[in-house]
Amino acid sequence: MKMNAVVAGVGMTRFGKHLEIGLKALGAEAIDKAVRDAGLELADLQAAYVGNAAAGLVTGQESIRGQVILRGMGVGKLPVINVENACASASTAFQQACAMVSAGLYDVVLALGVEKLYHEDKSVSFKAFSGAVDVEAMAEIMASLKRGAEKQGAEKASSGAGKSRSMFMDIYAAAARTHMKLYGTTAEQFAMVSAKNSFHGSMNERAQFREALTVEEVLAAPMIAEPLTRPMCSPIGDGAAAAIVVSERKARELGIGRPVRVLSSVLRSGWDRPYEEDGLTEVCSKEAYEEAGIGPDALSVVELHDASAPAEVIATEGLGLCEKGEGGRLVSEGHTKLGGKCPVNTSGGLLRKGHPVGATGLAQVVELAEQLGGKSGKRQVEGARFGLAHNGGGNIGIDAAATVVTILGAG
Amino acid sequence: MKMNAVVAGVGMTRFGKHLEIGLKALGAEAIDKAVRDAGLELADLQAAYVGNAAAGLVTGQESIRGQVILRGMGVGKLPVINVENACASASTAFQQACAMVSAGLYDVVLALGVEKLYHEDKSVSFKAFSGAVDVEAMAEIMASLKRGAEKQGAEKASSGAGKSRSMFMDIYAAAARTHMKLYGTTAEQFAMVSAKNSFHGSMNERAQFREALTVEEVLAAPMIAEPLTRPMCSPIGDGAAAAIVVSERKARELGIGRPVRVLSSVLRSGWDRPYEEDGLTEVCSKEAYEEAGIGPDALSVVELHDASAPAEVIATEGLGLCEKGEGGRLVSEGHTKLGGKCPVNTSGGLLRKGHPVGATGLAQVVELAEQLGGKSGKRQVEGARFGLAHNGGGNIGIDAAATVVTILGAG
Repeated sequence: MKMNAVVAGVGMTRFGKHLEIGLKALGAEAIDKAVRDAGLELADLQAAYVGNAAAGLVTGQESIRGQVILRGMGVGKLPVINVENACASASTAFQQACAMVSAGLYDVVLALGVEKLYHEDKSVSFKAFSGAVDVEAMAEIMASLKRGAEKQGAEKASSGAGKSRSMFMDIYAAAARTHMKLYGTTAEQFAMVSAKNSFHGSMNERAQFREALTVEEVLAAPMIAEPLTRPMCSPIGDGAAAAIVVSERKARELGIGRPVRVLSSVLRSGWDRPYEEDGLTEVCSKEAYEEAGIGPDALSVVELHDASAPAEVIATEGLGLCEKGEGGRLVSEGHTKLGGKCPVNTSGGLLRKGHPVGATGLAQVVELAEQLGGKSGKRQVEGARFGLAHNGGGNIGIDAAATVVTILGAG
Repeated sequence: MKMNAVVAGVGMTRFGKHLEIGLKALGAEAIDKAVRDAGLELADLQAAYVGNAAAGLVTGQESIRGQVILRGMGVGKLPVINVENACASASTAFQQACAMVSAGLYDVVLALGVEKLYHEDKSVSFKAFSGAVDVEAMAEIMASLKRGAEKQGAEKASSGAGKSRSMFMDIYAAAARTHMKLYGTTAEQFAMVSAKNSFHGSMNERAQFREALTVEEVLAAPMIAEPLTRPMCSPIGDGAAAAIVVSERKARELGIGRPVRVLSSVLRSGWDRPYEEDGLTEVCSKEAYEEAGIGPDALSVVELHDASAPAEVIATEGLGLCEKGEGGRLVSEGHTKLGGKCPVNTSGGLLRKGHPVGATGLAQVVELAEQLGGKSGKRQVEGARFGLAHNGGGNIGIDAAATVVTILGAG
C-alpha cells in the first residue's frame, strides 16, 4: 500500500509512573501538544484512531477509550476507531491513519496511543500482559519455549524468578539464550544495548529513567530471567503519544516548509514458522524499504522495539542493519550509538524512555519526527533524513502477533 | 466517504450460551462460513478487521484476538486490526473493511465480530459492560440520568433492581420513561416490539430465543427496570458473525450475478447535546441516505439496535421511518412486522436473536445480505432491495459513544 501522507505534528507526555493522572488526562495532553505542533485546532480533526492495550484490565475503561478522552476535550461527532494490537497498538493506529489519509478519505487524522499500566496492586499491571498471547494455547507456548531451549542445548530457563513480572521476559530470555548459542553473542553485548539506551535516555526529559548506566552496572543488576538483568527488561509505565497525519494538500495549506513524509508503513501479523526462516520483522521491513525506495544503509536513525536488550540485537538483524548473527557486534562496535553509523533508539528506547505498551508505537513516531525536523536537542542526529520505526506486539509462535515497520523521510 | 464495495459472503454461529465453545472456535465457524459463502478460500484474505468488546474482561484474551483466531485456522502474515467500539465493535470492523476496499487498498477483506459473554460467574459478564462508559465520569452519568428523569417529571428509576445486570438497562429505562412522558408512548407499545421480534426470532434457527411471545406475556414478565420487563431487554450471549467485503472487480471475477452492494456505511461518535437536538442516529442516517441516494421510504428491511424495546421505538424515529414521537404507533400499527411496510429486525433483533455485543453489528449485515439475496426462508421480505443496519455502542451523554449506519442494496 503506497503511502502518501505527512506527519504534521507530534506530541507526547513524559513516560513513567503517573498514579495520579488518569487515561483521559494523559491522552488529552498528547493530543493537545500534537494538534498545536501541527498548527491546527481540535475542530480540524476528521477522524481518530486510538491505540490502547490494557485499559480494560487495569483501569476498567474498555471499549470506547478514544471517545471518552476526546469527549473530555469537547470533541465529538467524528469517527473514532479504537484499535488494539498489544504492544503494537499505537503503531497500528498510526498505520491505519496513514492508510486513510493516503487513500484520500481524510485530510486530517489523529493517531493516539495511550496507556496506564501502573496500578496500586502490581499484579494487576502484570496480569494485563497475559491477554497478549493466545490464552487458550498458553500451556502449548510455554512447552514450546522449553523444547526450543533444550533443542538449542541452551541453559534451562531460570525457574526461580518471581511471578510478578511479564511472562514476555521468559520469552525474551529464551530468545537471548538461543542467540548466544547460535552466534556467540554475549551477555556483555546485551548489557551494551541497555547502557547505550540509558545514555540516550539520559538526554531525554520525557524518559522514564534518566540515569546513564555502565555496562558493569547493567550486568551487576538483579537477574530477572537468565541472562536478562533488570535494566535489560523494559519497565511498565504510563503515558501517551500522538501524531497528526495530514494529506499533502493539507500540508501545503499549512505551509509546512520541510514536511516529514510517511514513505511507508507496513502492518502484518505473525504466523507459525521454523526459527531459520525470515520472520515478521524481515517481511515487514523488506516491504517497507521497497515501498520507500530506500535500503537500510540510507537510514539516519532507527527507533526499534527493545522490549528487552536481546530484542534490540535481534531486531537490528531483522531490519537489515547488519547480517544475521551480527547484532551483538553491531552494538559492541558502537555503530548504533549516537555518533555511530546508524543510531538506534536515540529516545532511550522502550528500555529507558519506558514502555506504556499502547503508546509506544507513537512515541517512536514522535522521536523520529523530531529527529527529522532537527528538534532533538542534545540527542540530535546531524542531517537526519530517513528514519525507521519498528514496533511489535503480542506473541504468535516465535514471532510477534503484529508488527509495524514505518519509514519517514524529511523534505 | 463514498463506498464502493460488495458483500460477497456472510456467515454466523448460532447466538446463545456457548460455555463449552471458546472465542477461537466461535470466530472460526463464522469465518469459515463466510469465506465459503463468498466462493473464496482463507488464503484469499488480504486483511482482517476484528471486532470484540469484552474478551479481555471475560476470557482474558485481550489485545490480539483476531490473530489468535486466525492462527488457529492457519492464517497469518496479513494485517489484522482489532477494533473496539463497545456494542458497535463489529459494525466498526465492517465499516473499516468497506472503507479500505472502497479506497482501492484491498480486494478481499474479512470483517469479523466475535464475543463470549457467558461466564460461570455471571458478575464477570455484567462487569464487562461497565467499561463501555466513561469510567472516570460514571458518577456524573448516573446523576445526569436522575436529573433528566426528575426534570421530565417521570417516575424515579426503580432502585430495587439487583446489581447483576448491565447498568445500560437503567439508561434505557430512563429513556423509555422520558419518551412515555413526552409522546404518550405506552408500556404496551414497548411490549409489542418484543412480541414482534420474538415472532421474527421464532423463525430464525440461529436466534438465542425461539419462543414467540404475546404482548401479555411480555408485560407479565419480571420487571428489570421500570418499565422494562425481561423480554424488553436484550440478553447476554456468545457468538460470532462475519462478512467478506470485496471490490467490484473481485465481485465480477467471482461471477456474482446480483451482488449485495455497500451503498454507504457511516461511523460517528457521540457528543454532549440537549435532548431536543438531532442525535447520533439522525446524523449518521441522514449522511447514509444521502450517500446511498435513497430515503427511508425506499427501505425494504431494517436491522436496528434494539438493545431494549424502547431503543427500537426511538431508533425507528431517528432513522426517519416515522416522525419523532410516532415510534410507538409505528409498531402498534404493524408497520415494522414482517408483511408491514418496513419490517424491522426480521432476525429477531438483539432482543431475541441475541446480543453478543462485539458480534452484533455483523449479525445485522448477515441478516440484510441474506434478505437482499432472497435467502431468508420463512422470514423473507419479498422483493427486498434496500436494507439498513443501525448499530450503537457505549454511552456518551445521552447518545451512544459510537454509531454505524450502513445501507446495502441488491443488484
